[in-house]
Amino acid sequence: MTTTDVVIVGAGLAGLTAARELTAAGKSVIVLEARDRVAGRNCGHVLNNGVPIELGGQWIGPTQTEVLGLVRELGLETFNTYDTGTSVTAYNGTVTHYDDETFGLPIDSAMEVGRLQQELEALAATVSLSSPWLTDDAAELDRQTLDGWLRANTDDPGALAFWGGIVPAVFSAEVAEMSLLHFLFYIKSGGMIDQLVATTGGAQEMRVVGGTHQISERLAQELGEGIVRLNSPVRTITHDAAGVTVAYDGGEISAQRVIVAIPPTLAGRLAYSPALPASRDGLTQQIPMGSVIKVQIAYETPFWRTAGLNGFGVSLDDELSVTLDNSPADASCGVIVAFFEGAHARTAAALSDDERRASALNTLAKLFGEQALSPIDYVEKNWMEEEYTRGCYGGRLGAGVWTQYGKSLSEPIGAIHWAGAETAEEWNGYMDGAVRSGRRAAAEVLGELS
Amino acid sequence: MTTTDVVIVGAGLAGLTAARELTAAGKSVIVLEARDRVAGRNCGHVLNNGVPIELGGQWIGPTQTEVLGLVRELGLETFNTYDTGTSVTAYNGTVTHYDDETFGLPIDSAMEVGRLQQELEALAATVSLSSPWLTDDAAELDRQTLDGWLRANTDDPGALAFWGGIVPAVFSAEVAEMSLLHFLFYIKSGGMIDQLVATTGGAQEMRVVGGTHQISERLAQELGEGIVRLNSPVRTITHDAAGVTVAYDGGEISAQRVIVAIPPTLAGRLAYSPALPASRDGLTQQIPMGSVIKVQIAYETPFWRTAGLNGFGVSLDDELSVTLDNSPADASCGVIVAFFEGAHARTAAALSDDERRASALNTLAKLFGEQALSPIDYVEKNWMEEEYTRGCYGGRLGAGVWTQYGKSLSEPIGAIHWAGAETAEEWNGYMDGAVRSGRRAAAEVLGELS
Repeated sequence: MTTTDVVIVGAGLAGLTAARELTAAGKSVIVLEARDRVAGRNCGHVLNNGVPIELGGQWIGPTQTEVLGLVRELGLETFNTYDTGTSVTAYNGTVTHYDDETFGLPIDSAMEVGRLQQELEALAATVSLSSPWLTDDAAELDRQTLDGWLRANTDDPGALAFWGGIVPAVFSAEVAEMSLLHFLFYIKSGGMIDQLVATTGGAQEMRVVGGTHQISERLAQELGEGIVRLNSPVRTITHDAAGVTVAYDGGEISAQRVIVAIPPTLAGRLAYSPALPASRDGLTQQIPMGSVIKVQIAYETPFWRTAGLNGFGVSLDDELSVTLDNSPADASCGVIVAFFEGAHARTAAALSDDERRASALNTLAKLFGEQALSPIDYVEKNWMEEEYTRGCYGGRLGAGVWTQYGKSLSEPIGAIHWAGAETAEEWNGYMDGAVRSGRRAAAEVLGELS
Repeated sequence: MTTTDVVIVGAGLAGLTAARELTAAGKSVIVLEARDRVAGRNCGHVLNNGVPIELGGQWIGPTQTEVLGLVRELGLETFNTYDTGTSVTAYNGTVTHYDDETFGLPIDSAMEVGRLQQELEALAATVSLSSPWLTDDAAELDRQTLDGWLRANTDDPGALAFWGGIVPAVFSAEVAEMSLLHFLFYIKSGGMIDQLVATTGGAQEMRVVGGTHQISERLAQELGEGIVRLNSPVRTITHDAAGVTVAYDGGEISAQRVIVAIPPTLAGRLAYSPALPASRDGLTQQIPMGSVIKVQIAYETPFWRTAGLNGFGVSLDDELSVTLDNSPADASCGVIVAFFEGAHARTAAALSDDERRASALNTLAKLFGEQALSPIDYVEKNWMEEEYTRGCYGGRLGAGVWTQYGKSLSEPIGAIHWAGAETAEEWNGYMDGAVRSGRRAAAEVLGELS
């Protein structure tokens, strides 16, 4: 049996960052990865014209300092998402171009959206990021769904449609599928709503030249030969106060500590011996992953730019609900990235490939004109089907879960530590949160082993 | 490798009933059970005075015809739960004895409870038991939590307290933790609220002499030597249209079909090769099990009877919230069965054994008098800690789950069929539903193999 100081389960950003920190501190590590590749929810792809795109998480915002620092340390470069021109919204059969803060909604609805945003952010300001369950009034905030709160606080159909569209765009889940407390925690964790939804100045500001999966690839390379073991799904973690034995398809490793750096719902599927406390197990029974199909549609040119459009589109009337300009930095071709999210992802997944493609292209034509019907490539990634992620962007907590189970999200259990974007206080659910969680878990382990 | 016609995962009532039906039709079966005993959520125990009690599901109602028929076929006997005398409710610091329909609530609150019950049952009558997602207005009913509906429909604090107490008693979960549609489905599945909560004439009417675990024990015995394999947790199901290979701790079995007869959340933890469709996987990510600690407190005599009390108690002020007389048929001693349920179970689980016992006894003393402080035995079962159940009474569906994932609850996937109380149309979540689900799954398999 191999022996190492720390075993890490999962070679995504969280696991690899933890491995890097531990290695830098002189500890030996082995990273076990179920897939035949590293990078988890980051995943590169190349269009049929040779242009690289990304099937998974791709954007980095200016306040995401941890992942941004890592990108630069590893010698990768960023470029800005194209963001010049007019945005477009389809709502109630009308397509509206806009340059202002209205999101293309009727003015009354836009005002109501703003009022609700202020109220939600005032509530979010009260939330404890380190311990959401200790927030003043946590029980009351957690009892309600976001849907319940919205309907109790407005009857403006445009405002309800907006929140019903923008929330799946951020969470890949519906307003009824998360507690108000979870929504508030998450928006505060990412610096509030404008930060989350903005391109320039927000979470979609930058992209990595060549793709974000290179961050993980370079981290793995830096660790050296034999440290990251691919095609090695972990099955059982046997643990006591002194250490762990981790059994995977391919062998067993004995270590002083293990860091489980995979989504909570997947962490709950490992066998633990002895079994984990009920509080942790109950948590993993109820953090479902979001639902998303990411679509990239390539054209000879970014034709919408010549029409003065920036490629940012929202349709509150269609299944394909959000689009952005995803063209390469040199604009050698045009690429729109678009998403089926939440309930739309689930219904779109049930369509045939042809039906789903037609649905996507028809929405793009509505937003950007008939040229959208003639792509040169069309690429989809259904993250719900990925056995070792089982949904993106991340896990969410429904009504009652934060207050009753939240404490178990990152609290170590003996020799077992937890990492992953879902365990982050800042930028929870994002690459930046994943990096932070890996550093936090590594620090926990170092504190115990030193 | 062993070969058989059908492998069954789980030797609870559902799995063993399926095995019985298949065997009767001439098929060979092997039942793989993770535990060192059969009967799943039924479990026998003996008090220190030699009187048998039950740590798990114990009651049978008169309309639970399938489990009742099975009990009689297997030569077991039933007796009636003691139900003579006055009931008692603690609410807002007041203890009220009552013989009427008021549940011991202030009359205005009792009237409001009745009005809400009528409205809920009128809505429940519209629900499709076979396909809840096809119910008229399903999206609207599923979007709301039961909590949201209650608060929108009453502001009577007594009525809200009542529903907040009685719902955990039936579901081991809070009103915010299930969708309105799930609540409506479940109450209709069990014949509406009076049936669910009543002793005589309802789901708590009868008990099995010696304990309900004997049903499973006799079913296993009837199957014969070598058919039920204990201590055999299943790890991987490899499947194609032609059949399955089931790998467990102890070997592999090849079969034409498998019936997975364990709770959905545990079914989701098995490894499937190829991986299951996202619709099924997403479902198992979000059917958490209920939370309950079942407590039995034994006394020299059923002293409450001499005070004219039937032992049925509800405290809306305490963590131990529901009690019933659980004395043996001959009343050779007195036994109260009581429950920490839902959120109370989770907080009570965090107490020390002594603290929890004191909390339970203090509530009993409040309801039945000081004699309750001097038991001759005190037995607890925390079902959340059971590795191979992970909560009782059963799985629940939160807001949005039935409409988006419900179809995958019992729909076979190639050679894989699903059973268990959570998959039943009638008496979902009860022993009767488990038996029905086993018969349904066996019939599916026979239809394909014959």
